Amino acid sequence: MDVRKTLEAMGMTLPPPSPCNGRFVKVKYFGDHLLYVSGSGSETPFRDTYGKLGKDVSLQEGRAAAADTILNILTAIEEELGDLDRITSFVKLLVFVSSDPDFYDQPLVADGATELLVQIFGKEIGCPARSAIGVAVLPGNISVETECIVAFE
Amino acid sequence: MDVRKTLEAMGMTLPPPSPCNGRFVKVKYFGDHLLYVSGSGSETPFRDTYGKLGKDVSLQEGRAAAADTILNILTAIEEELGDLDRITSFVKLLVFVSSDPDFYDQPLVADGATELLVQIFGKEIGCPARSAIGVAVLPGNISVETECIVAFE
Amino acid sequence: MDVRKTLEAMGMTLPPPSPCNGRFVKVKYFGDHLLYVSGSGSETPFRDTYGKLGKDVSLQEGRAAAADTILNILTAIEEELGDLDRITSFVKLLVFVSSDPDFYDQPLVADGATELLVQIFGKEIGCPARSAIGVAVLPGNISVETECIVAFE
Repeated sequence: MDVRKTLEAMGMTLPPPSPCNGRFVKVKYFGDHLLYVSGSGSETPFRDTYGKLGKDVSLQEGRAAAADTILNILTAIEEELGDLDRITSFVKLLVFVSSDPDFYDQPLVADGATELLVQIFGKEIGCPARSAIGVAVLPGNISVETECIVAFE
Repeated sequence: MDVRKTLEAMGMTLPPPSPCNGRFVKVKYFGDHLLYVSGSGSETPFRDTYGKLGKDVSLQEGRAAAADTILNILTAIEEELGDLDRITSFVKLLVFVSSDPDFYDQPLVADGATELLVQIFGKEIGCPARSAIGVAVLPGNISVETECIVAFE
Repeated sequence: MDVRKTLEAMGMTLPPPSPCNGRFVKVKYFGDHLLYVSGSGSETPFRDTYGKLGKDVSLQEGRAAAADTILNILTAIEEELGDLDRITSFVKLLVFVSSDPDFYDQPLVADGATELLVQIFGKEIGCPARSAIGVAVLPGNISVETECIVAFE
């Protein structure tokens, strides 16, 4: 697999690495060939999405914001591993969706993240276990935040 | 241990496998003999529970809904491993409780999930580390969603 | 490293072990030399913090509450491992901040937890991957709850 070529063919650009907004690291190794990737927001140099689903942000905008969290996650992993081709599995995504208490479509929002992963990495590597949750509010009023566990070699 | 016999003796029936409501897999392997089980809702063919604790749903109904998430989790694990007797540990449960902002008894709700695990699997295998959280809203307006890590052999 | 000496030099006291408030265990082993630590609240014999950030609780109080969750986590780990010097890595913190829907500074609250970890354990061991989330409400109306994954030897 050549993830960088796939991204190019899709016309996608990864955002540049950004500093941590707080006292933590973006990725940390654990167990045998596993990485925990910190909660990653939807802000990129290309697009910002702020506010709550069901109130300020449409489903379509929310899906795009969820995809943007994946771009930030890929940047963080590439910065650590040097090469996205080393990824062998997206194990688990926890997708937090900033939600009005009457918005019920968190899975459709989270699909924006996991559909992109499957497009880039294929089903076996890219399709993770997942939880999609409606939270009261996210840091900086972003619309979506995603954390994940990745296996690599 | 014979989990299927225990379930029969308890008069319990596992719901049939249901398709994923979104782009993800229900369980994914990671590390050495570990499974991540996706966030599982409380809807079964036997009972549905919708709405928020502290507003639409009683504590007793919430506890039952938490137990129902375990039934869905067991179905997903059995579908993957073929036999629930292969489970050696419920490592961690993260129980999301759809909550009115003034409802404080998330642990009592989550006990409905972990008490059932201990009844079925005994304390050593069935009693997990756990977090119980009050979230703004859950997919489809269900009352409880649970994700978990399971060890197997 | 001598964590107990470091804590003494910092003038810090760990709270005594407290019973589980619910049907779960405070820590559970998984994988190879990993511990999952259950969601730990901010109540200690020294201080309680109740209510939501952005409404009942100031940022400074929230940061202190986040630090208090770490004290409870350290007590739970020491009770299990016997010696905090056995910790080799704080892998991942998931920090739930009880938040008014208009409070956006969850990372600043969570810094109260991870800054304390880095003070005690140094950057390599103490600085984890992290997610900071604004939730609708937490058990018993506490302000912060933290769960974590720890590696040990």
